[in-house]
Amino acid sequence: MKINGTPYRTIWPTAGNQAVEIIDQTKLPHIFATLRLENMRDTERAIRDMQVRGAPLIGVTAAYGVALAMRGNASDAALAEACSVLLASRPTAVNLRWGVEKMRALLTPLPERERAAAAWKEAARIADEDVAINAAIGKHGSEIIRASYQNKDGQRKNSTVNILTHCNAGWLATVDWGTALAPVYTAFDAGIPLHVWVDETRPRNQGASLTAWELGQHGVPHTVIADNTGGHLMQHGMVDMAIVGTDRVTARGDVCNKIGTYLKALAAHDNGVPFYVALPTPTIDWTLQDGVKDIPIEERTPEEVTHISGWCEDGQVRSVLLTPVNSRAANYSFDVTPARLVTGLITERGVVAADAEGMRALAI
Amino acid sequence: MKINGTPYRTIWPTAGNQAVEIIDQTKLPHIFATLRLENMRDTERAIRDMQVRGAPLIGVTAAYGVALAMRGNASDAALAEACSVLLASRPTAVNLRWGVEKMRALLTPLPERERAAAAWKEAARIADEDVAINAAIGKHGSEIIRASYQNKDGQRKNSTVNILTHCNAGWLATVDWGTALAPVYTAFDAGIPLHVWVDETRPRNQGASLTAWELGQHGVPHTVIADNTGGHLMQHGMVDMAIVGTDRVTARGDVCNKIGTYLKALAAHDNGVPFYVALPTPTIDWTLQDGVKDIPIEERTPEEVTHISGWCEDGQVRSVLLTPVNSRAANYSFDVTPARLVTGLITERGVVAADAEGMRALAI
Repeated sequence: MKINGTPYRTIWPTAGNQAVEIIDQTKLPHIFATLRLENMRDTERAIRDMQVRGAPLIGVTAAYGVALAMRGNASDAALAEACSVLLASRPTAVNLRWGVEKMRALLTPLPERERAAAAWKEAARIADEDVAINAAIGKHGSEIIRASYQNKDGQRKNSTVNILTHCNAGWLATVDWGTALAPVYTAFDAGIPLHVWVDETRPRNQGASLTAWELGQHGVPHTVIADNTGGHLMQHGMVDMAIVGTDRVTARGDVCNKIGTYLKALAAHDNGVPFYVALPTPTIDWTLQDGVKDIPIEERTPEEVTHISGWCEDGQVRSVLLTPVNSRAANYSFDVTPARLVTGLITERGVVAADAEGMRALAI
Repeated sequence: MKINGTPYRTIWPTAGNQAVEIIDQTKLPHIFATLRLENMRDTERAIRDMQVRGAPLIGVTAAYGVALAMRGNASDAALAEACSVLLASRPTAVNLRWGVEKMRALLTPLPERERAAAAWKEAARIADEDVAINAAIGKHGSEIIRASYQNKDGQRKNSTVNILTHCNAGWLATVDWGTALAPVYTAFDAGIPLHVWVDETRPRNQGASLTAWELGQHGVPHTVIADNTGGHLMQHGMVDMAIVGTDRVTARGDVCNKIGTYLKALAAHDNGVPFYVALPTPTIDWTLQDGVKDIPIEERTPEEVTHISGWCEDGQVRSVLLTPVNSRAANYSFDVTPARLVTGLITERGVVAADAEGMRALAI
């Protein structure tokens, strides 16, 4: 999508395919900076330190990481090491495993001398495939937004479609378009008047820093709110639908996403507001059923709760302590929204209900 | 309750009754400082700038404000002006109106020369009454905590009682004891092992800054969490009950409290976790029924969402910008939890259900 009028992706090969470049997402929204990743360890660090984040982008970055590893040494041992290092960089994201295993499966049978070129080509193909998948999610999801704006005869029934989103499942979380925000961009570019309520998404504030930034750069009207606010807005008819992304969906449609998603789904359900989850189908983990019981929830450092960083009046990005020095904090990164609270899953193959029938349609 | 081992109230007259002193709550948790209020305008500013906050403490501070006004000029005009200025300092709190009107009713029939002494005595009496009411809330509420810890025969059935709270309805919000935290302190002082999950409570972070601080000073085990976390904890059996305060309860038991309370009540309901609201009965506004429709919700400055302040490594308390420069923010301060989601109201007169029968019992 656009940054200050110029089209960008979140990851791209340098001229001559010597390295890949990314947007350093830890610096947003205050500083827009790109970063050059020269080797596999650079990609592992970028994933671990969340300079790239978002399930699809992590998968693509890992694929490029394998490709970078193959340039210097394409032995079986080097391939095994690259896969193992990259798989350990973030524990929860199923797309990370998917991207790495896809590379391993492709490269293992090839002779060493062919691996580097094949790996690079495959990583680029995975990136392009992500863009195509998200564009398709955008197309299907935008029809839901259009249906909220006008009826089938094209007559207007809503002056502005208000959409609530949580965390960042925008184009910054993918290679382009995003998952939850792909329908928003598609509908916006088609001229449908809309406005996005952006949950700030504590503790890492990906909503306030990333979602607000990318919507603003593309020109989409939006308002940042504290995570506590969505229920009140829904009680007062100020939200027409919620659309969120996901890190993992179980075979029965339970949705693991950023901590706090479950609370918004409860509020949507209590107020008759449609609650959609946008995802590429590889996000579905067919080995799991009961998400609340079966999905391990990543615990991150308490410092993400006790501290926050932002732009200080003196022009520095500074971290400040929010809590008493001796108070403990806990930092659970994800929660699970049971399928019963989800109105529909927006996928590249169309929109399905989060129930047995809908999941069967995606399993075929 | 205790600060570093020493008993405190949140507001107290100076020796000789020349002024009142308060704890400057805007400086917590980083700096403990007290502030001397010399006149009515000082008290108005302390309420408006939230150096004192919490419905009961606002009411008592306003009463002292009227008393301070009467010292210099006890005319009808001065009384009317003091009441009018103080009533305008915070729009939502029903206790503010209650405290001011109580003073007006007492002072109006008195001769001018008697007003100053009577006002001072009445303000002190209102403060003592608040302490007594909260101690009674603590006693009744602690029985609920005890019942979670052991059965009627005194046999242990829970190793630690985990209580979730939102915002600050602790002793800092009252003169002493608190409302939501009065049961916690009472149970803790009685030796019941407990632990409090403290919602940080964005945007003003009263949980992270005030609740965590006062629990820590009194020695109560607690953990600060992002507001997004409570649903996940409840899904996993990590919360035995929620207890929150309230700024206003309608005649049918709908509860207006800090924004985000409704989301926690939904999660409690979805997981069978008891959800209690602690309040002095003057918090009930018998003129209102449907809280969602009828209670006006204060909107505060967007800067509370876009900025946050904390303790910086350089030893300064600094404000940092969290959002992109051009992104809008909205800041609704309260939401309304429908009575159907409330397990019980803990009052100075006992615990009642938030239903027609329970409310009738409190109306008598």
